[in-house]
Amino acid sequence: MRDVYHEELDSIGRTLIEMTGLVGTAMGRATTALLEADLQVAESVISADDAVDALQRELDARSLDLLARQQPVAGDLRTIITSLRMSADIERMGDLARHVAKVARLRYPDVAVPVDLRDTIGRMGRIAVDLATKTAEIIEGRDVAVARELPVDDDAMDDLHRALFGALLDKRAEYSTEMAIDVTLIGRYYERFADHAVSVSKRIIFLVTGEPH
Amino acid sequence: MRDVYHEELDSIGRTLIEMTGLVGTAMGRATTALLEADLQVAESVISADDAVDALQRELDARSLDLLARQQPVAGDLRTIITSLRMSADIERMGDLARHVAKVARLRYPDVAVPVDLRDTIGRMGRIAVDLATKTAEIIEGRDVAVARELPVDDDAMDDLHRALFGALLDKRAEYSTEMAIDVTLIGRYYERFADHAVSVSKRIIFLVTGEPH
Repeated sequence: MRDVYHEELDSIGRTLIEMTGLVGTAMGRATTALLEADLQVAESVISADDAVDALQRELDARSLDLLARQQPVAGDLRTIITSLRMSADIERMGDLARHVAKVARLRYPDVAVPVDLRDTIGRMGRIAVDLATKTAEIIEGRDVAVARELPVDDDAMDDLHRALFGALLDKRAEYSTEMAIDVTLIGRYYERFADHAVSVSKRIIFLVTGEPH
Repeated sequence: MRDVYHEELDSIGRTLIEMTGLVGTAMGRATTALLEADLQVAESVISADDAVDALQRELDARSLDLLARQQPVAGDLRTIITSLRMSADIERMGDLARHVAKVARLRYPDVAVPVDLRDTIGRMGRIAVDLATKTAEIIEGRDVAVARELPVDDDAMDDLHRALFGALLDKRAEYSTEMAIDVTLIGRYYERFADHAVSVSKRIIFLVTGEPH
């Protein structure tokens, strides 16, 4: 009986890792769609997010079922509750990737991002993918040392986010209001994606060490 | 023993209602700070958000404690898990009110919002406050009928949000890029605030009827 129970706990962890992999891939592809005005990739990112939502619903149902049937205490209880919270963060990361893809679709066949901001957005996209990859590793290995490094990547994201606004303001004459709106929203999507990854990593630190966040 | 337990469950509900009241007030005051460039009000909204965060931490700790000690099943388990999720939504609503206040502070003594968009923002602020008031009532009375009406207010918010972008684009020559960035972010803060209120109301519908969302 306990073996089935721990198998179910492991399976929740595997689903979280799978979801994190999917949203990382989605943000990478959304960035490609955005910077290359690739409508097909944008559409596929938008429709693929349903799978992440379905995984979250299924994971949450399994977690609640486990809570009700097994009445876990202490560590296992904390693991299940934390999993519910992590799944909410990761599901939201998927939404944000979809939002980026939707901007790409809205402006197609134009590229929503002005030429001289594309490098910055490309770097934000790479940091986002990198954060998702590290987050999956942190969930898998419960690696607190790596989790503690994530805020450094998040700081790099925040710097690029600020640089984006700076560039918008510096060269205001060259950008249309539409571009300013798009870039403001896109920048926020990447920044929130990174925040949620950091949030997941903090939850793992809490799980392993008991440190509140 | 069961009396203390149900007293604790009630107390969790009261804390959720208190938090919702606080974030509604915060968004109302943030809107005032924004439209009247009132630095003092902006500062007080920004610092008051700590109290919401503290309430959430305390509520979550009490919920986890209750789960661990009482091993609730069925309805009570669902109530506690749903409370954890609602507290996350409401805490986020507080963050969004603080974000609005921060824009007011950043642009002080100027008003961040151009004159002819102030009416739209004022209406978004009133809908946000109204949504928070209704959300508190829905939590208190577990009122599914009122909860089902919330998406109507949310649609009104979305309409105003779209109108805001429309106005930015129509009169682009009159607005600076800085204004376009500010208004884009502010619009998103109100829209997300409304989304979280709707999310809380859906969780109440789920609690009462078992309907998934």
